Amino acid sequence: MTDLPTIADIHQAAERIASVVHNTPVHTCRTFDLSTGCRAYFKCENFQKVGAFKARGASNAVLSLGNEVTSVATHSSGNHGAAVAYAARLSGKNAQIVIPEGSNRLKVEAIRQYGGIIRPCAPGMRSRQSSLADVVRETGAAVIHPFDDSLVIAGQGTAALELLGDLPDIDLIVTPVGGGGLISGTLLVAKSQNRPVRVIGVEPATADDARQSFRSGTRVTIDAAKTIADGLRASIGERNFELIRTYADDIVTVTDEEIVTAMRFVLTRMKILIEPSAAAPVAALLNGRIADHGKKIGIILTGGNADPDDLPW
Amino acid sequence: MTDLPTIADIHQAAERIASVVHNTPVHTCRTFDLSTGCRAYFKCENFQKVGAFKARGASNAVLSLGNEVTSVATHSSGNHGAAVAYAARLSGKNAQIVIPEGSNRLKVEAIRQYGGIIRPCAPGMRSRQSSLADVVRETGAAVIHPFDDSLVIAGQGTAALELLGDLPDIDLIVTPVGGGGLISGTLLVAKSQNRPVRVIGVEPATADDARQSFRSGTRVTIDAAKTIADGLRASIGERNFELIRTYADDIVTVTDEEIVTAMRFVLTRMKILIEPSAAAPVAALLNGRIADHGKKIGIILTGGNADPDDLPW
Repeated sequence: MTDLPTIADIHQAAERIASVVHNTPVHTCRTFDLSTGCRAYFKCENFQKVGAFKARGASNAVLSLGNEVTSVATHSSGNHGAAVAYAARLSGKNAQIVIPEGSNRLKVEAIRQYGGIIRPCAPGMRSRQSSLADVVRETGAAVIHPFDDSLVIAGQGTAALELLGDLPDIDLIVTPVGGGGLISGTLLVAKSQNRPVRVIGVEPATADDARQSFRSGTRVTIDAAKTIADGLRASIGERNFELIRTYADDIVTVTDEEIVTAMRFVLTRMKILIEPSAAAPVAALLNGRIADHGKKIGIILTGGNADPDDLPW
Repeated sequence: MTDLPTIADIHQAAERIASVVHNTPVHTCRTFDLSTGCRAYFKCENFQKVGAFKARGASNAVLSLGNEVTSVATHSSGNHGAAVAYAARLSGKNAQIVIPEGSNRLKVEAIRQYGGIIRPCAPGMRSRQSSLADVVRETGAAVIHPFDDSLVIAGQGTAALELLGDLPDIDLIVTPVGGGGLISGTLLVAKSQNRPVRVIGVEPATADDARQSFRSGTRVTIDAAKTIADGLRASIGERNFELIRTYADDIVTVTDEEIVTAMRFVLTRMKILIEPSAAAPVAALLNGRIADHGKKIGIILTGGNADPDDLPW
């Protein structure tokens, strides 16, 4: 693998996307700290452009393309699609978004609002990839992969860069793991600090490809995983596996029920809306899957695109 | 009236409560700005201690009491009660809270969690006042009035002080009006600036005592007003009327349906939970009750204590 991103790529990404993404705020919650025995710092990417950290990676990748590229394409269960459409519009390109059927209604609507062209496909990674290949053949669009892409990984890493910039004494960062873009960028940032910063990923128990891969040392994929966390259904990519295998401290899992309870906890106590995928790290800490009492823990709340008309409780 | 608060009282309050309340963040929302034609700055008091701006006024009043006072009391539909219980516990006093039956379940639970002693009463201002008098006779507690109190008004004014400190070029501040504590403090801050800052209050149409009072020049009260905005059912106090009559630019009204739509808009678009009372100013702007196109408008999102199990849509 020659093109794994580095910390230098993340600093470059931070500069490239500074004017098009938010430096999101960090919230705290006394009740959460009392419940878990840690001091938690929640990086609120639910307040990010397009309502998710995905704006970072997509903007970095799309803004890196030359003017001769007039069209971009991707497959996404929602947030990455909206992020690519957002970044494409900023750069005057058109965006073709392959979306598995059954995706979150609000996310599909957002893609449309950002001017993206929707290309429906059957659920599952194989179907997504073959539909995307069709679109590329047809339009010649440049593919912005949702996670297995160095520029995307570098963009996602800017969230942890901001978090450790604000709070340099954080001991551990916890992120959800879907395809692995966010945790990959986070690992590069954490491991470039001049003090130990651990990184633990959290997956739904039914989509634990990263955990199985991390434990076995071989990349495992799970096709069309069933979980309420629609952003975590994908299996980790090759670059992502490489970085997780090399640098991650652990991957733990939570149940869908724990995810829903955590999402409701955050809405009730912190007054902010997060989507199920974002609730996975919160659930892991509330249920003792990560025991780091007294430590300063950064939690990346990855997105807020849940449907207020269809909350899962 | 000899004891109306002044801007000096608000500066004093800001110092007194600095270590026990949050300097809350200010959010923006592009979709809201596009819909309304203004540039809105949302002061997020839903992220305040006890989930509402009421922590400010109650803390200022309770922390002003000497150690010889061991007990405080108030009547409140919820947030002020929680705020008094919170401030009392900080100061090692006990708190007796008179609460009208039918109050928000979560708010009553919060009062209990902060160590407050619940005293139920029938709904309506008369019943609240007579129950509070009973409690005082029985316990000798010092009364912390929810709004008709100079220290409480001064404390509530600190929200606008922070907002104009962060954004000194705001043209207009919009607040909900219940008993009038928040708008009173806001008026004192706005009118002490060395440039014009307008202040407009918003009420539910069914609880428009402030609007009627402002228009007629005589204080009007409405007993047991029916509206989903449980924090706006009270009628304005004497000090509050005096300040509103003297300084307010206007009082406008919204329907309960508009309030619910605004609350849902804020959750969907801004990813934050606000309670119905807090949604009144948002509703007023979304429905063209306040037409200030192009202006910089500060909106105080007063609280976030809505029940995620019972959202009103």
